[in-house]
Amino acid sequence: MKAEIITIGDEILIGQIVDTNSAWMAEQLNLNGIEVYQVTSVHDDHEHILRAFADAESRADLILITGGLGPTKDDITKKALCDYFQCGMHRDEKTLQQVIERLSKRNVTINQLNKDQALVPDVCTVLQNSNGTAPGMWFEKDDTIFVSMPGVPFEMQGIMVEEVLPRLRKNGKLKSIYHQTVLVYGIPESMLAEQLDEWESALPSFVKLAYLPNQLMIRLRLSAYGNDMEELKALVDQKVRELEQLIPNNIFGYNNDTISGITGKLLQKTGSFVATAESCTGGNIAHLYTEIPGSSAYFRGGVVAYSNEVKMAALGVKPETLEAHGAVSRETALEMVQGVKKALNTDYGIATTGIAGPDGGSADKPVGTVWIAVSGKQETVVERFVFHHNRERNIQRSSQTALNMLRQLLISEMKSELK
Amino acid sequence: MKAEIITIGDEILIGQIVDTNSAWMAEQLNLNGIEVYQVTSVHDDHEHILRAFADAESRADLILITGGLGPTKDDITKKALCDYFQCGMHRDEKTLQQVIERLSKRNVTINQLNKDQALVPDVCTVLQNSNGTAPGMWFEKDDTIFVSMPGVPFEMQGIMVEEVLPRLRKNGKLKSIYHQTVLVYGIPESMLAEQLDEWESALPSFVKLAYLPNQLMIRLRLSAYGNDMEELKALVDQKVRELEQLIPNNIFGYNNDTISGITGKLLQKTGSFVATAESCTGGNIAHLYTEIPGSSAYFRGGVVAYSNEVKMAALGVKPETLEAHGAVSRETALEMVQGVKKALNTDYGIATTGIAGPDGGSADKPVGTVWIAVSGKQETVVERFVFHHNRERNIQRSSQTALNMLRQLLISEMKSELK
Repeated sequence: MKAEIITIGDEILIGQIVDTNSAWMAEQLNLNGIEVYQVTSVHDDHEHILRAFADAESRADLILITGGLGPTKDDITKKALCDYFQCGMHRDEKTLQQVIERLSKRNVTINQLNKDQALVPDVCTVLQNSNGTAPGMWFEKDDTIFVSMPGVPFEMQGIMVEEVLPRLRKNGKLKSIYHQTVLVYGIPESMLAEQLDEWESALPSFVKLAYLPNQLMIRLRLSAYGNDMEELKALVDQKVRELEQLIPNNIFGYNNDTISGITGKLLQKTGSFVATAESCTGGNIAHLYTEIPGSSAYFRGGVVAYSNEVKMAALGVKPETLEAHGAVSRETALEMVQGVKKALNTDYGIATTGIAGPDGGSADKPVGTVWIAVSGKQETVVERFVFHHNRERNIQRSSQTALNMLRQLLISEMKSELK
Repeated sequence: MKAEIITIGDEILIGQIVDTNSAWMAEQLNLNGIEVYQVTSVHDDHEHILRAFADAESRADLILITGGLGPTKDDITKKALCDYFQCGMHRDEKTLQQVIERLSKRNVTINQLNKDQALVPDVCTVLQNSNGTAPGMWFEKDDTIFVSMPGVPFEMQGIMVEEVLPRLRKNGKLKSIYHQTVLVYGIPESMLAEQLDEWESALPSFVKLAYLPNQLMIRLRLSAYGNDMEELKALVDQKVRELEQLIPNNIFGYNNDTISGITGKLLQKTGSFVATAESCTGGNIAHLYTEIPGSSAYFRGGVVAYSNEVKMAALGVKPETLEAHGAVSRETALEMVQGVKKALNTDYGIATTGIAGPDGGSADKPVGTVWIAVSGKQETVVERFVFHHNRERNIQRSSQTALNMLRQLLISEMKSELK
């Protein structure tokens, strides 16, 4: 089954809001084995909407429409639907009762605009909106299903979950589908593609691989469509294990994992705590930990040592070290990581010192130069990197790289403990 | 001039990513007086892409295309463009050189996939991509302009700002337009709308006011379209001064100002430094400072005191205080802010301690409870807030509120010094 999504409203086209509705609906449909063929965002314009309906019908079996409903929108979508299906409107009594109940709860006296929300095209099946006053509407034309929903995200989501998906399931329109996403770090996309080329071309036709790179990592998404869920699950999981064999050192997690979250789980396993000593990353690593609920179980705190005074006062970095090697150096990074472990009494530490840019670079220490040190119960690792991005991305890359170094240290220490 | 946006790639259609590119491009085009008629997201499918091109050409004068470029995308967009404009491809030497330079910087050995990135359709003008390896491409067909850009947001944004918008301006495709954005904080949108109602309805027809609320503030954007730039500028600037009269206490900045940046400028003026002591905001405030180039001129550093141990060891918070009042209390916030000023030797300090959630709340200290203290040369202010959002937003709101408290403190101290 092929679906299309039509969002109606100027907000998206003037860039005032990001179209999160389409992403949510597309994900729901894909999770249920329905391929989304196109997403179209159109103006609050009658003719334009009718054209979008016709175009979509020529390509898709299921058309989900959001927006352009409700009093302030002048119910432009409803009028377009009546035109498209050549029918009139009538008042749906059940909907009217719900509008009255909902508004009286909020002590709002009902007016004509509210009453008109209960007007629905004659040929539609009304879908309950348990979160608002504008109902959803279900149309069937030949073999195509049209569904119109309000644009308010939680109202649309309620109607999708409570009404639309159950109906599609009942009509046997939902295929089985299984996804796994493998998170890859520390290898350029082109190199990864080369390494996986053979493996990828050997994938069965009903298994799709998507490369989803962002600034921090590459997400490899495996999707299998079919009828036997168990079979799909077994196959995709096996393919994931094959990937683990092919790029053992680049996979750091799965699905919605983050590097900070993964190190957090490893720390919790061993009952250890980590502390951060950040110069160039300026608190971003601490932020990446503390944005995780429950991170106080393994993140004790940190020092943002943005000036040399703080490096010395709070972390015990020696003046001679700063004098001899400078703040951006192996020696300073090492003293920072040892200092923060001592000061905050933790088994693990992360330290960063570098030049995020745009200024402050020199010939031997160009902008983007970062020294990162991570230290654990036995090992301490320090490494130099040179990132070639703008300030914001250099900070993000440095933070993720430092977290990944801690991840690798934690794993190697756990392995050596198992010996 | 009418524009359409076409995004190519399955990521959006499988709901893996939200289409932020279209919102960003739509905003840029609107800022330059170009109306966006439709946004279309299509599959990595040759026929489908060609159809989208033709449909868009039938409606628009400017067609912006993102995605479907790059090694693993099999450059499907490039092939479609060659078909559409009936031309072949050739290697662009300048682009190839840039690809080689960029990859060698990252010590990546160039492979065939990388080389192919320098292949471009014969009839296009190559647009420099200063942030990546896939170039932008500019086509003109009759009176319609097609621009193809990679889908990676910061690469697309760079090409738009450095290449596309300047060319449109040069070709006289951009109307004269003047914007000023006033940043408003600490007043609900509905109340603001009420206060500005009369003033807004008195605006001349060629001046548009847009409310652009986000999680942290409301951006009021004044846009004037016309022919005489000087006239537009004078009028909009006057309207901004009127706004300053109407809501003197809620305007904290203009255009791209951030609260952290504004406090930074004020600190620099007075030659002072600030330090942060963060519990519930977990380093986010330090991050908001250190992401600003040159912030070392006024931000000395901070302590992320996520555990009581750190509050005591690094900030000198008394055990009795934590015992008697708890970590989330006026008394702890005050000792934290005094402690960090002392430890990091600064005139100004910010301290936050609270419950970001989702867990950890109680009857008298519900989730979202935050104590914020700011301290300066003369004054110290401490205040309790209860935010009703999820963890991420509570952290952001707490950070922005703390920075705004410092801003107000700085202003009041500067005023008192002028007396």
